[in-house]
Amino acid sequence: MSDENTLVFLKIPSKIGAWSPNTWKTRSTSSYSLNYKGIPYKTVWVEFPDIEKTLKDLGVAAYTTQPDGKTPLYTLPAIYDPTIKTGLTESFAIARYLDEKYPDKPMLVPKGTEVLQKAHINAMQARLEPIWQFMIPKTAWSLNERSEKYFRRTKEEMESQTMEEMYPKGEKRKEEWKKLEKGFGQADKWYGKEDVLVMGGKEKACFADFAFAGYVIWIRILFGKESEELKDVSRWQDGRWGRMIQALEQYE
Amino acid sequence: MSDENTLVFLKIPSKIGAWSPNTWKTRSTSSYSLNYKGIPYKTVWVEFPDIEKTLKDLGVAAYTTQPDGKTPLYTLPAIYDPTIKTGLTESFAIARYLDEKYPDKPMLVPKGTEVLQKAHINAMQARLEPIWQFMIPKTAWSLNERSEKYFRRTKEEMESQTMEEMYPKGEKRKEEWKKLEKGFGQADKWYGKEDVLVMGGKEKACFADFAFAGYVIWIRILFGKESEELKDVSRWQDGRWGRMIQALEQYE
Repeated sequence: MSDENTLVFLKIPSKIGAWSPNTWKTRSTSSYSLNYKGIPYKTVWVEFPDIEKTLKDLGVAAYTTQPDGKTPLYTLPAIYDPTIKTGLTESFAIARYLDEKYPDKPMLVPKGTEVLQKAHINAMQARLEPIWQFMIPKTAWSLNERSEKYFRRTKEEMESQTMEEMYPKGEKRKEEWKKLEKGFGQADKWYGKEDVLVMGGKEKACFADFAFAGYVIWIRILFGKESEELKDVSRWQDGRWGRMIQALEQYE
Repeated sequence: MSDENTLVFLKIPSKIGAWSPNTWKTRSTSSYSLNYKGIPYKTVWVEFPDIEKTLKDLGVAAYTTQPDGKTPLYTLPAIYDPTIKTGLTESFAIARYLDEKYPDKPMLVPKGTEVLQKAHINAMQARLEPIWQFMIPKTAWSLNERSEKYFRRTKEEMESQTMEEMYPKGEKRKEEWKKLEKGFGQADKWYGKEDVLVMGGKEKACFADFAFAGYVIWIRILFGKESEELKDVSRWQDGRWGRMIQALEQYE
Protein backbone atom coordinates (compact mmCIF):
# COMPACT_ATOMS: atom_id res chain seq x y z
CA MET A 1 0.00 0.00 0.00
CA SER A 2 2.75 2.40 0.95
CA ASP A 3 5.45 3.74 -1.35
CA GLU A 4 7.55 6.87 -1.48
CA ASN A 5 4.52 8.83 -2.71
CA THR A 6 2.28 7.86 0.20
CA LEU A 7 0.93 10.75 2.25
CA VAL A 8 2.65 11.12 5.62
CA PHE A 9 0.57 11.88 8.71
CA LEU A 10 2.58 13.43 11.59
CA LYS A 11 1.38 12.79 15.14
CA ILE A 12 2.63 13.04 18.70
CA PRO A 13 3.12 9.76 20.62
CA SER A 14 2.10 9.27 24.27
CA LYS A 15 2.15 6.72 27.04
CA ILE A 16 -1.44 5.77 26.39
CA GLY A 17 -1.44 5.28 22.67
CA ALA A 18 -1.64 7.03 19.37
CA TRP A 19 -2.67 10.60 20.11
CA SER A 20 -1.28 14.08 20.58
CA PRO A 21 -2.11 16.29 23.57
CA ASN A 22 -3.57 19.74 23.10
CA THR A 23 -3.89 19.05 19.41
CA TRP A 24 -5.05 15.54 20.01
CA LYS A 25 -8.65 16.38 19.35
CA THR A 26 -7.77 17.73 15.93
CA ARG A 27 -5.43 14.81 15.29
CA SER A 28 -8.42 12.53 15.70
CA THR A 29 -10.37 14.81 13.35
CA SER A 30 -7.66 14.44 10.71
CA SER A 31 -7.54 10.65 11.16
CA TYR A 32 -11.28 10.55 10.55
CA SER A 33 -10.81 12.81 7.51
CA LEU A 34 -8.15 10.58 5.93
CA ASN A 35 -10.12 7.42 6.64
CA TYR A 36 -13.41 8.89 5.43
CA LYS A 37 -11.80 9.69 2.10
CA GLY A 38 -10.12 6.27 2.13
CA ILE A 39 -6.65 7.67 1.50
CA PRO A 40 -3.68 5.47 2.42
CA TYR A 41 -1.07 7.13 4.62
CA LYS A 42 1.84 6.29 6.82
CA THR A 43 2.26 7.67 10.33
CA VAL A 44 5.34 9.45 11.66
CA TRP A 45 5.58 10.05 15.40
CA VAL A 46 7.00 13.36 16.58
CA GLU A 47 7.69 14.25 20.23
CA PHE A 48 6.47 17.66 21.38
CA PRO A 49 9.86 19.42 21.55
CA ASP A 50 10.70 18.21 18.02
CA ILE A 51 7.62 19.53 16.22
CA GLU A 52 9.10 22.82 15.08
CA LYS A 53 12.33 21.33 13.70
CA THR A 54 10.51 18.45 12.01
CA LEU A 55 8.04 20.73 10.22
CA LYS A 56 10.74 23.21 9.23
CA ASP A 57 12.87 20.39 7.83
CA LEU A 58 9.89 19.26 5.76
CA GLY A 59 9.22 22.80 4.56
CA VAL A 60 5.79 22.88 6.21
CA ALA A 61 4.72 26.40 7.20
CA ALA A 62 3.22 27.19 10.59
CA TYR A 63 -0.50 27.82 10.49
CA THR A 64 -0.66 30.25 13.39
CA THR A 65 1.53 32.35 15.67
CA GLN A 66 2.54 32.45 19.34
CA PRO A 67 0.47 34.77 21.57
CA ASP A 68 2.87 37.60 20.57
CA GLY A 69 1.17 37.55 17.17
CA LYS A 70 4.49 37.27 15.31
CA THR A 71 6.55 34.17 16.15
CA PRO A 72 5.28 31.22 14.10
CA LEU A 73 3.68 28.44 16.17
CA TYR A 74 4.33 24.98 14.75
CA THR A 75 1.58 22.51 15.58
CA LEU A 76 0.46 18.99 14.82
CA PRO A 77 -1.39 17.27 13.26
CA ALA A 78 0.24 17.85 9.92
CA ILE A 79 0.39 15.98 6.65
CA TYR A 80 3.32 15.85 4.27
CA ASP A 81 2.72 15.08 0.61
CA PRO A 82 5.85 13.65 -1.01
CA THR A 83 4.46 14.26 -4.50
CA ILE A 84 4.63 18.02 -3.98
CA LYS A 85 7.41 17.89 -1.40
CA THR A 86 5.59 19.96 1.15
CA GLY A 87 2.68 19.68 3.52
CA LEU A 88 0.38 21.56 5.81
CA THR A 89 -0.94 21.76 9.35
CA GLU A 90 -4.36 22.50 10.89
CA SER A 91 -7.17 20.04 10.51
CA PHE A 92 -9.55 22.18 8.42
CA ALA A 93 -6.78 23.17 6.01
CA ILE A 94 -5.82 19.49 5.75
CA ALA A 95 -9.43 18.56 4.97
CA ARG A 96 -9.63 21.19 2.22
CA TYR A 97 -6.36 19.97 0.77
CA LEU A 98 -7.62 16.38 0.73
CA ASP A 99 -10.86 17.48 -0.96
CA GLU A 100 -8.91 19.33 -3.64
CA LYS A 101 -6.48 16.51 -4.22
CA TYR A 102 -9.13 13.77 -4.16
CA PRO A 103 -12.34 15.36 -5.47
CA ASP A 104 -13.71 11.95 -6.50
CA LYS A 105 -13.69 10.66 -2.93
CA PRO A 106 -16.48 11.66 -0.52
CA MET A 107 -16.17 15.36 0.22
CA LEU A 108 -15.32 16.55 3.72
CA VAL A 109 -16.42 20.10 2.90
CA PRO A 110 -19.14 19.89 0.23
CA LYS A 111 -19.55 23.03 -1.86
CA GLY A 112 -21.45 25.74 -0.06
CA THR A 113 -20.84 24.35 3.43
CA GLU A 114 -17.45 25.82 4.34
CA VAL A 115 -18.65 28.90 6.21
CA LEU A 116 -21.40 26.88 7.87
CA GLN A 117 -19.03 24.12 8.97
CA LYS A 118 -16.58 26.65 10.39
CA ALA A 119 -19.43 28.30 12.27
CA HIS A 120 -20.46 24.89 13.62
CA ILE A 121 -16.92 24.24 14.85
CA ASN A 122 -16.75 27.71 16.35
CA ALA A 123 -20.09 27.29 18.09
CA MET A 124 -18.95 23.96 19.54
CA GLN A 125 -15.76 25.58 20.78
CA ALA A 126 -17.76 28.25 22.54
CA ARG A 127 -20.30 25.83 24.02
CA LEU A 128 -17.79 23.18 25.14
CA GLU A 129 -15.42 25.67 26.75
CA PRO A 130 -15.59 23.90 30.17
CA ILE A 131 -13.88 20.85 28.69
CA TRP A 132 -10.41 22.40 28.55
CA GLN A 133 -9.75 22.59 32.28
CA PHE A 134 -10.25 18.82 32.36
CA MET A 135 -8.42 17.92 29.22
CA ILE A 136 -5.30 20.04 29.44
CA PRO A 137 -4.17 18.52 32.76
CA LYS A 138 -5.27 15.03 31.68
CA THR A 139 -3.15 15.57 28.60
CA ALA A 140 -0.06 16.58 30.58
CA TRP A 141 -0.40 13.53 32.82
CA SER A 142 -0.39 11.14 29.91
CA LEU A 143 2.51 12.42 27.81
CA ASN A 144 5.91 10.81 27.53
CA GLU A 145 8.34 12.43 29.97
CA ARG A 146 10.15 14.61 27.46
CA SER A 147 6.93 15.95 25.96
CA GLU A 148 5.30 16.33 29.37
CA LYS A 149 8.08 18.59 30.65
CA TYR A 150 7.77 20.77 27.56
CA PHE A 151 3.99 20.81 27.63
CA ARG A 152 3.82 21.68 31.35
CA ARG A 153 6.35 24.45 31.05
CA THR A 154 4.58 26.17 28.15
CA LYS A 155 1.00 25.60 29.38
CA GLU A 156 1.61 26.45 33.02
CA GLU A 157 3.27 29.68 32.01
CA MET A 158 0.39 30.57 29.70
CA GLU A 159 -2.32 29.73 32.26
CA SER A 160 -0.44 31.00 35.35
CA GLN A 161 -1.36 27.86 37.25
CA THR A 162 -0.12 24.28 37.52
CA MET A 163 -1.93 21.43 35.84
CA GLU A 164 -2.93 20.18 39.29
CA GLU A 165 -4.43 23.58 40.17
CA MET A 166 -6.30 23.81 36.90
CA TYR A 167 -8.02 20.44 37.20
CA PRO A 168 -11.45 20.95 38.87
CA LYS A 169 -12.05 19.06 42.14
CA GLY A 170 -14.98 18.34 44.49
CA GLU A 171 -18.01 20.59 44.09
CA LYS A 172 -16.28 22.67 41.43
CA ARG A 173 -15.76 19.54 39.40
CA LYS A 174 -19.46 18.65 39.57
CA GLU A 175 -20.47 22.17 38.53
CA GLU A 176 -18.07 22.35 35.63
CA TRP A 177 -19.08 18.91 34.41
CA LYS A 178 -22.69 20.04 34.56
CA LYS A 179 -21.78 23.09 32.48
CA LEU A 180 -20.20 20.81 29.91
CA GLU A 181 -23.42 18.79 29.74
CA LYS A 182 -25.31 22.05 29.15
CA GLY A 183 -22.88 22.90 26.37
CA PHE A 184 -23.61 19.63 24.63
CA GLY A 185 -27.28 20.36 25.25
CA GLN A 186 -26.99 23.56 23.20
CA ALA A 187 -25.75 21.57 20.23
CA ASP A 188 -28.49 19.01 20.74
CA LYS A 189 -31.10 21.67 19.93
CA TRP A 190 -29.72 22.05 16.42
CA TYR A 191 -30.45 18.44 15.48
CA GLY A 192 -33.75 16.97 14.40
CA LYS A 193 -34.93 13.95 16.34
CA GLU A 194 -33.69 11.47 13.74
CA ASP A 195 -30.47 13.28 12.85
CA VAL A 196 -27.30 11.58 13.96
CA LEU A 197 -24.83 13.54 11.87
CA VAL A 198 -24.55 17.22 11.04
CA MET A 199 -25.94 16.95 7.53
CA GLY A 200 -28.92 14.92 8.71
CA GLY A 201 -29.46 11.16 8.90
CA LYS A 202 -26.49 8.98 9.75
CA GLU A 203 -24.96 8.13 6.40
CA LYS A 204 -23.35 11.27 5.06
CA ALA A 205 -20.62 12.64 7.28
CA CYS A 206 -18.66 15.87 6.87
CA PHE A 207 -15.71 17.58 8.46
CA ALA A 208 -17.82 19.23 11.18
CA ASP A 209 -18.92 15.78 12.38
CA PHE A 210 -15.32 14.72 12.74
CA ALA A 211 -14.38 17.93 14.53
CA PHE A 212 -17.28 17.45 16.94
CA ALA A 213 -16.62 13.74 17.45
CA GLY A 214 -13.02 14.67 18.27
CA TYR A 215 -14.23 16.02 21.63
CA VAL A 216 -15.87 12.75 22.55
CA ILE A 217 -12.94 10.63 21.40
CA TRP A 218 -10.70 12.93 23.43
CA ILE A 219 -12.72 12.08 26.54
CA ARG A 220 -12.69 8.39 25.63
CA ILE A 221 -8.93 8.25 25.34
CA LEU A 222 -8.00 10.47 28.27
CA PHE A 223 -10.56 9.14 30.75
CA GLY A 224 -10.77 5.63 29.32
CA LYS A 225 -13.35 3.52 27.52
CA GLU A 226 -14.97 2.34 30.74
CA SER A 227 -14.87 5.71 32.51
CA GLU A 228 -17.89 7.35 34.08
CA GLU A 229 -17.01 10.46 32.08
CA LEU A 230 -17.40 8.71 28.74
CA LYS A 231 -20.59 7.05 29.94
CA ASP A 232 -21.93 10.47 30.92
CA VAL A 233 -21.29 12.00 27.51
CA SER A 234 -22.66 8.92 25.74
CA ARG A 235 -25.96 9.09 27.61
CA TRP A 236 -26.39 12.89 27.64
CA GLN A 237 -29.10 14.29 25.38
CA ASP A 238 -30.82 10.95 25.17
CA GLY A 239 -27.73 9.16 23.89
CA ARG A 240 -27.25 11.40 20.87
CA TRP A 241 -23.45 11.59 21.14
CA GLY A 242 -23.12 7.86 21.70
CA ARG A 243 -25.01 7.34 18.44
CA MET A 244 -22.82 9.90 16.68
CA ILE A 245 -19.61 8.11 17.69
CA GLN A 246 -21.12 4.79 16.64
CA ALA A 247 -22.09 6.12 13.21
CA LEU A 248 -18.53 7.38 12.68
CA GLU A 249 -16.79 4.31 14.12
CA GLN A 250 -16.05 2.94 10.66
CA TYR A 251 -13.78 5.94 10.00
CA GLU A 252 -11.75 5.82 13.20
CA MET B 1 -52.22 40.20 -5.16
CA SER B 2 -53.94 39.67 -1.84
CA ASP B 3 -57.06 37.59 -1.21
CA GLU B 4 -58.46 35.75 1.77
CA ASN B 5 -55.88 33.01 1.27
CA THR B 6 -52.87 35.35 1.42
CA LEU B 7 -50.36 34.62 4.16
CA VAL B 8 -50.52 37.06 7.06
CA PHE B 9 -47.31 38.37 8.60
CA LEU B 10 -47.72 39.72 12.15
CA LYS B 11 -45.36 42.46 13.30
CA ILE B 12 -45.05 45.06 16.05
CA PRO B 13 -45.32 48.74 15.01
CA SER B 14 -43.07 51.50 16.37
CA LYS B 15 -42.48 55.22 16.20
CA ILE B 16 -39.64 54.79 13.72
CA GLY B 17 -41.20 52.49 11.21
CA ALA B 18 -42.01 48.92 10.46
CA TRP B 19 -40.20 46.87 13.03
CA SER B 20 -40.62 45.10 16.35
CA PRO B 21 -38.27 45.54 19.31
CA ASN B 22 -36.56 42.59 20.95
CA THR B 23 -37.84 40.35 18.22
CA TRP B 24 -37.16 42.94 15.59
CA LYS B 25 -34.00 41.24 14.42
CA THR B 26 -35.91 38.05 13.72
CA ARG B 27 -38.77 40.00 12.18
CA SER B 28 -36.33 41.31 9.62
CA THR B 29 -35.10 37.76 9.12
CA SER B 30 -38.63 36.62 8.39
CA SER B 31 -39.23 39.53 6.00
CA TYR B 32 -36.11 38.50 4.11
CA SER B 33 -37.34 34.89 4.12
CA LEU B 34 -40.74 35.75 2.66
CA ASN B 35 -39.24 38.04 0.05
CA TYR B 36 -36.48 35.60 -0.89
CA LYS B 37 -39.10 32.99 -1.63
CA GLY B 38 -41.20 35.60 -3.39
CA ILE B 39 -44.33 34.83 -1.42
CA PRO B 40 -47.05 37.50 -1.29
CA TYR B 41 -48.25 38.40 2.19
CA LYS B 42 -50.18 41.06 4.00
CA THR B 43 -48.94 42.67 7.17
CA VAL B 44 -50.89 42.97 10.42
CA TRP B 45 -49.54 45.27 13.12
CA VAL B 46 -49.78 44.11 16.73
CA GLU B 47 -48.83 46.22 19.74
CA PHE B 48 -46.69 44.51 22.37
CA PRO B 49 -49.38 44.04 25.04
CA ASP B 50 -51.70 42.48 22.45
CA ILE B 51 -49.41 39.77 21.16
CA GLU B 52 -50.63 36.98 23.41
CA LYS B 53 -54.31 37.57 22.81
CA THR B 54 -53.84 38.00 19.06
CA LEU B 55 -51.91 34.76 18.70
CA LYS B 56 -54.30 32.84 20.93
CA ASP B 57 -57.27 34.13 18.93
CA LEU B 58 -55.61 32.89 15.75
CA GLY B 59 -54.82 29.51 17.33
CA VAL B 60 -51.08 30.05 17.01
CA ALA B 61 -49.11 28.17 19.67
CA ALA B 62 -46.28 29.78 21.64
CA TYR B 63 -42.85 28.62 20.58
CA THR B 64 -41.17 28.99 23.93
CA THR B 65 -41.90 29.58 27.62
CA GLN B 66 -41.36 32.30 30.21
CA PRO B 67 -38.24 31.95 32.37
CA ASP B 68 -40.29 29.74 34.73
CA GLY B 69 -40.08 27.05 32.04
CA LYS B 70 -43.86 26.52 32.07
CA THR B 71 -45.92 29.58 31.14
CA PRO B 72 -46.11 29.91 27.35
CA LEU B 73 -44.32 32.99 25.97
CA TYR B 74 -46.07 34.45 22.93
CA THR B 75 -43.68 36.22 20.58
CA LEU B 76 -43.59 37.87 17.18
CA PRO B 77 -42.81 37.60 14.33
CA ALA B 78 -45.52 35.11 13.43
CA ILE B 79 -47.25 34.10 10.27
CA TYR B 80 -50.84 33.00 9.91
CA ASP B 81 -51.84 30.81 7.00
CA PRO B 82 -55.58 31.19 6.23
CA THR B 83 -55.58 28.02 4.09
CA ILE B 84 -54.87 25.87 7.15
CA LYS B 85 -56.41 28.31 9.64
CA THR B 86 -53.39 28.39 11.89
CA GLY B 87 -49.88 29.76 11.96
CA LEU B 88 -46.58 29.71 13.73
CA THR B 89 -43.97 31.85 15.42
CA GLU B 90 -40.14 31.84 15.54
CA SER B 91 -38.18 32.74 12.45
CA PHE B 92 -36.48 29.39 11.84
CA ALA B 93 -39.76 27.50 12.20
CA ILE B 94 -41.36 29.99 9.82
CA ALA B 95 -38.56 29.40 7.29
CA ARG B 96 -39.01 25.64 7.47
CA TYR B 97 -42.74 26.02 7.03
CA LEU B 98 -42.25 28.21 3.96
CA ASP B 99 -39.78 25.69 2.50
CA GLU B 100 -42.27 22.87 3.02
CA LYS B 101 -45.19 24.79 1.60
CA TYR B 102 -43.25 26.23 -1.35
CA PRO B 103 -40.60 23.65 -2.23
CA ASP B 104 -40.35 24.99 -5.80
CA LYS B 105 -39.20 28.40 -4.62
CA PRO B 106 -35.56 28.95 -3.60
CA MET B 107 -34.89 27.01 -0.40
CA LEU B 108 -34.11 28.84 2.82
CA VAL B 109 -32.80 25.68 4.44
CA PRO B 110 -31.43 23.42 1.69
CA LYS B 111 -31.34 19.72 2.54
CA GLY B 112 -28.43 18.83 4.79
CA THR B 113 -27.85 22.37 6.05
CA GLU B 114 -30.30 22.61 8.94
CA VAL B 115 -27.95 21.64 11.78
CA LEU B 116 -25.17 23.72 10.23
CA GLN B 117 -27.37 26.78 9.84
CA LYS B 118 -28.58 26.50 13.42
CA ALA B 119 -24.98 26.22 14.57
CA HIS B 120 -24.13 29.33 12.54
CA ILE B 121 -26.96 31.24 14.17
CA ASN B 122 -25.92 30.00 17.59
CA ALA B 123 -22.29 30.93 17.00
CA MET B 124 -23.34 34.43 15.92
CA GLN B 125 -25.47 34.77 19.05
CA ALA B 126 -22.49 33.87 21.20
CA ARG B 127 -20.05 36.12 19.34
CA LEU B 128 -22.35 39.16 19.08
CA GLU B 129 -23.43 39.04 22.72
CA PRO B 130 -22.23 42.66 23.39
CA ILE B 131 -24.89 43.97 21.00
CA TRP B 132 -27.81 43.43 23.39
CA GLN B 133 -26.91 46.08 25.96
CA PHE B 134 -27.09 48.61 23.11
CA MET B 135 -30.13 47.30 21.35
CA ILE B 136 -32.50 46.58 24.22
CA PRO B 137 -32.48 50.18 25.50
CA LYS B 138 -32.51 51.58 21.94
CA THR B 139 -35.53 49.40 21.36
CA ALA B 140 -37.38 50.66 24.42
CA TRP B 141 -36.73 54.26 23.43
CA SER B 142 -38.29 53.81 20.03
CA LEU B 143 -41.51 51.97 20.86
CA ASN B 144 -44.96 53.44 20.86
CA GLU B 145 -45.93 54.52 24.36
CA ARG B 146 -48.15 51.56 25.18
CA SER B 147 -45.60 49.03 24.00
CA GLU B 148 -42.72 50.91 25.63
CA LYS B 149 -44.36 50.76 29.07
CA TYR B 150 -44.92 47.05 28.72
CA PHE B 151 -41.45 46.40 27.31
CA ARG B 152 -39.71 48.43 30.04
CA ARG B 153 -41.61 46.77 32.83
CA THR B 154 -40.85 43.23 31.68
CA LYS B 155 -37.25 43.87 30.59
CA GLU B 156 -36.22 46.01 33.55
CA GLU B 157 -37.55 43.38 35.92
CA MET B 158 -35.70 40.63 34.08
CA GLU B 159 -32.40 42.52 33.93
CA SER B 160 -32.69 44.21 37.35
CA GLN B 161 -31.65 47.53 35.86
CA THR B 162 -33.30 50.37 33.97
CA MET B 163 -32.82 50.79 30.24
CA GLU B 164 -30.76 53.90 30.97
CA GLU B 165 -28.47 51.97 33.32
CA MET B 166 -28.02 49.16 30.85
CA TYR B 167 -26.94 51.36 27.95
CA PRO B 168 -23.10 51.61 27.94
CA LYS B 169 -21.62 55.10 28.26
CA GLY B 170 -18.18 56.74 27.95
CA GLU B 171 -15.19 54.39 28.16
CA LYS B 172 -17.43 51.39 28.77
CA ARG B 173 -19.23 52.14 25.55
CA LYS B 174 -15.97 52.20 23.60
CA GLU B 175 -14.86 48.91 25.11
CA GLU B 176 -18.15 47.14 24.49
CA TRP B 177 -18.31 48.43 20.92
CA LYS B 178 -14.76 47.13 20.42
CA LYS B 179 -15.89 43.74 21.75
CA LEU B 180 -18.70 43.75 19.23
CA GLU B 181 -16.21 44.42 16.43
CA LYS B 182 -14.17 41.46 17.69
CA GLY B 183 -17.29 39.31 17.62
CA PHE B 184 -17.89 40.18 13.99
CA GLY B 185 -14.21 39.45 13.45
CA GLN B 186 -14.72 35.89 14.64
CA ALA B 187 -17.34 35.35 11.98
CA ASP B 188 -15.12 36.96 9.38
CA LYS B 189 -12.62 34.11 9.78
CA TRP B 190 -15.18 31.60 8.55
CA TYR B 191 -15.51 33.26 5.14
CA GLY B 192 -13.19 32.90 2.18
CA LYS B 193 -11.90 36.14 0.69
CA GLU B 194 -14.48 36.18 -2.11
CA ASP B 195 -17.42 34.90 -0.10
CA VAL B 196 -20.14 37.40 0.58
CA LEU B 197 -22.85 35.01 1.72
CA VAL B 198 -22.79 31.97 3.97
CA MET B 199 -22.95 29.42 1.19
CA GLY B 200 -20.14 31.10 -0.74
CA GLY B 201 -20.24 33.70 -3.52
CA LYS B 202 -22.99 36.31 -3.41
CA GLU B 203 -25.83 34.77 -5.39
CA LYS B 204 -27.25 31.97 -3.29
CA ALA B 205 -28.61 33.11 0.05
CA CYS B 206 -29.95 30.98 2.86
CA PHE B 207 -31.70 31.46 6.17
CA ALA B 208 -28.44 31.90 8.12
CA ASP B 209 -27.60 34.90 5.92
CA PHE B 210 -30.89 36.52 6.77
CA ALA B 211 -30.47 35.77 10.48
CA PHE B 212 -26.99 37.30 10.41
CA ALA B 213 -28.03 40.30 8.32
CA GLY B 214 -30.80 40.88 10.87
CA TYR B 215 -28.17 42.14 13.32
CA VAL B 216 -26.89 44.74 10.89
CA ILE B 217 -30.36 45.88 9.85
CA TRP B 218 -31.18 46.17 13.53
CA ILE B 219 -28.30 48.60 13.95
CA ARG B 220 -29.31 50.47 10.82
CA ILE B 221 -32.86 51.00 11.99
CA LEU B 222 -32.18 51.76 15.64
CA PHE B 223 -29.13 53.98 15.15
CA GLY B 224 -30.11 55.31 11.74
CA LYS B 225 -28.85 55.00 8.17
CA GLU B 226 -26.34 57.82 8.57
CA SER B 227 -25.14 56.80 12.03
CA GLU B 228 -21.49 56.27 12.94
CA GLU B 229 -22.54 52.90 14.35
CA LEU B 230 -23.80 51.63 11.00
CA LYS B 231 -20.73 53.05 9.27
CA ASP B 232 -18.55 51.18 11.76
CA VAL B 233 -20.18 47.83 11.12
CA SER B 234 -20.17 48.40 7.37
CA ARG B 235 -16.43 49.03 7.28
CA TRP B 236 -15.39 46.40 9.86
CA GLN B 237 -13.56 43.38 8.46
CA ASP B 238 -12.69 45.17 5.30
CA GLY B 239 -16.28 46.02 4.47
CA ARG B 240 -17.50 42.44 4.52
CA TRP B 241 -20.80 43.18 6.28
CA GLY B 242 -21.51 46.15 4.08
CA ARG B 243 -21.19 43.88 1.06
CA MET B 244 -23.40 41.28 2.72
CA ILE B 245 -26.23 43.76 3.27
CA GLN B 246 -25.84 45.01 -0.29
CA ALA B 247 -26.09 41.49 -1.71
CA LEU B 248 -29.28 40.90 0.27
CA GLU B 249 -30.83 44.32 -0.42
CA GLN B 250 -33.08 42.91 -3.13
CA TYR B 251 -34.89 40.80 -0.48
CA GLU B 252 -35.47 43.55 2.07
